[in-house]
Amino acid sequence: MHGVAGFETFTTNLGVRDDTPDFLVIRSTAPAPLMTAMFTTSQFPGPSVTISRRHLAQAAARGVVAVSKNANVGNGPDGEADASSILAAVASECGMRPQEFLIASTGIIGRRYPVARMLEGIRGMGARLGGCDFSAAARAIMTTDTKPKLVAAAVDGATIVGIAKGVGMIEPKMATLFSFWFTDARIDESQFAPMFRRVMDETFNCLSIDTDTSTSDTALLMASQVGPGVAVPRFEAAFRDAAERLTKIVAADGEGATKLITVTVTGAEDDDSARRIAKSIVNSPLVKTAVHGADPNWGRILMAAGKTERATIDPAQLRVSFGDIAVYPQRAAEVDLVALTDALKRPEVDIGVDLGSGGGRARVWGCDLSQGYVTINASYST
Amino acid sequence: MHGVAGFETFTTNLGVRDDTPDFLVIRSTAPAPLMTAMFTTSQFPGPSVTISRRHLAQAAARGVVAVSKNANVGNGPDGEADASSILAAVASECGMRPQEFLIASTGIIGRRYPVARMLEGIRGMGARLGGCDFSAAARAIMTTDTKPKLVAAAVDGATIVGIAKGVGMIEPKMATLFSFWFTDARIDESQFAPMFRRVMDETFNCLSIDTDTSTSDTALLMASQVGPGVAVPRFEAAFRDAAERLTKIVAADGEGATKLITVTVTGAEDDDSARRIAKSIVNSPLVKTAVHGADPNWGRILMAAGKTERATIDPAQLRVSFGDIAVYPQRAAEVDLVALTDALKRPEVDIGVDLGSGGGRARVWGCDLSQGYVTINASYST
Repeated sequence: MHGVAGFETFTTNLGVRDDTPDFLVIRSTAPAPLMTAMFTTSQFPGPSVTISRRHLAQAAARGVVAVSKNANVGNGPDGEADASSILAAVASECGMRPQEFLIASTGIIGRRYPVARMLEGIRGMGARLGGCDFSAAARAIMTTDTKPKLVAAAVDGATIVGIAKGVGMIEPKMATLFSFWFTDARIDESQFAPMFRRVMDETFNCLSIDTDTSTSDTALLMASQVGPGVAVPRFEAAFRDAAERLTKIVAADGEGATKLITVTVTGAEDDDSARRIAKSIVNSPLVKTAVHGADPNWGRILMAAGKTERATIDPAQLRVSFGDIAVYPQRAAEVDLVALTDALKRPEVDIGVDLGSGGGRARVWGCDLSQGYVTINASYST
Repeated sequence: MHGVAGFETFTTNLGVRDDTPDFLVIRSTAPAPLMTAMFTTSQFPGPSVTISRRHLAQAAARGVVAVSKNANVGNGPDGEADASSILAAVASECGMRPQEFLIASTGIIGRRYPVARMLEGIRGMGARLGGCDFSAAARAIMTTDTKPKLVAAAVDGATIVGIAKGVGMIEPKMATLFSFWFTDARIDESQFAPMFRRVMDETFNCLSIDTDTSTSDTALLMASQVGPGVAVPRFEAAFRDAAERLTKIVAADGEGATKLITVTVTGAEDDDSARRIAKSIVNSPLVKTAVHGADPNWGRILMAAGKTERATIDPAQLRVSFGDIAVYPQRAAEVDLVALTDALKRPEVDIGVDLGSGGGRARVWGCDLSQGYVTINASYST
């Protein structure tokens, strides 16, 4: 049970797909909360994203409604109407206006909400408001996640709590899966949204489980401003650290994943090139399967770096290592394959690539590719 | 046994990895053969590719040496020396100069050739030259391919034969895996290389098994010119048809694959956009696993189209179908999931996407993603 001053949470089951928690409402009860958000860059977002963008632009938002186990995407005007009726019902129960809420929804694409059942479950919600339990909130947004995902941090007397969901269809681009952040800190409003973007860009945007970008990615940060004032640089450092921890928790729980993979690229011409190369490596199915099998097939790192587009590599300068074990440009016979195999058997595998040609760097996170990923996703809809 | 006038083939086992055929030499014995080739765009090619590029530029090439089961990549100067000594030995046996041969090599990265054993096996090869058997040639270039890959076509009395290898690490970019073509036709030399590029671009460059671009991709076309003269448009049409057939054979034999997937995108703003969207769909692990499991989770097509970068999609104009079965923008309840599941159980799955906004189109080929892909690649090197 984690709480943050100035927020209320409400979770329940509305029967969206089964009888596990699937519905979350969080609102700030403070007089002047701040809110910022980022959304998927998919060209096929659902009404949750389009409505949320609209409400965010109206600058009245002070809450979020999250539905799990159905994305409400690909349902045309029906989907838009369904989302609006859910928001209207929640707002009415809370004594607020619909445009004071964002809405986030993930799960299967192309199926409608069971709207009648959901509206019935929302009825009477107003009388049960008042508590604040982010642990329950983290559980309520799970789909095929194997565990709730929550981190907390303290900075200068203020609290930061983050919750996330997502195990597949994850390569966030300029946004993330669900990554919701709440703090009681008072923060300089002019720096609030830019700071949020910087932190998300260095953490959740450096995460890829399977290269597939969701239609429903939503990241948001709310500050109730009822706690102590915190200088932006100090807040940002604590937030960034917490966001990196939550990113790694998500990566390690990727569908079918048995290992967390961290790829660090240094010496690139610029940070963007470094990130492209790092993503090419962490997304390579041949790298991911080799890590899964603890197969010391390090040559695949050369392959995956070499195929990167829009990033220049000088093969003569390249250095590759797994943790402390250098594998290239050592001669093949000099690579300690036994030690490398042992390193690959650990639950966290670190791959280092130095390009030797500049100051650009990036770190990205992902996971191995297992038979379990295929099994989960070969029968997801049925 | 397939032969083409003006060519000799030689295959054997040199013990590169095991005792199956792993070595192929093809040369033209005609007085004025033509040769053109394309190579991987990887920034980390091995000496096979760099030497072949050099020899092709010298315009004396009239043969190719192919080594399978070892890519000879990532071995530094040792790898360069090994490739040169193999070529020198072959040239000496054939009474030719090394620069008259290209060399192509695929298999594991970061291991040296067993050069001494290979040179011993090459000794005496000159006395055994003279035959022409492209069926044996197709077998000699296999690595983990489950079957030899060969197509043949006839056009106006001339013969075209193509052989290919490759089952994983396949997303050719401006080149291909191994795709070797031979014809006895007399063809206009000025149109020879551009025609080859056009055909490869529409066939092998529209193939992706796992998004991983090999360091060793090599495509080549040789014409002995000892057969009938053929007009380029007629030759190109027959060649294109044969190349498409060979592309589909490669796609269907992807590592662990059980199904061929064809994605056709029409109505795009231009052909490049269409191809980017088609590739995004055929490469999506969530689309590939759904096809594998015959799971009618068609919403993933929207997701995969929606994430495409550098291609514009208007969701309101989008139409999606599987063969004859329209799935979007039909209302969810209108989609015949039973018929769709049946279609997904067939060995060939056709996905159609119409963007309704222009004349651009593309067709690409790939395969499903199975547990078998993971199993094969989790222990490839050991």
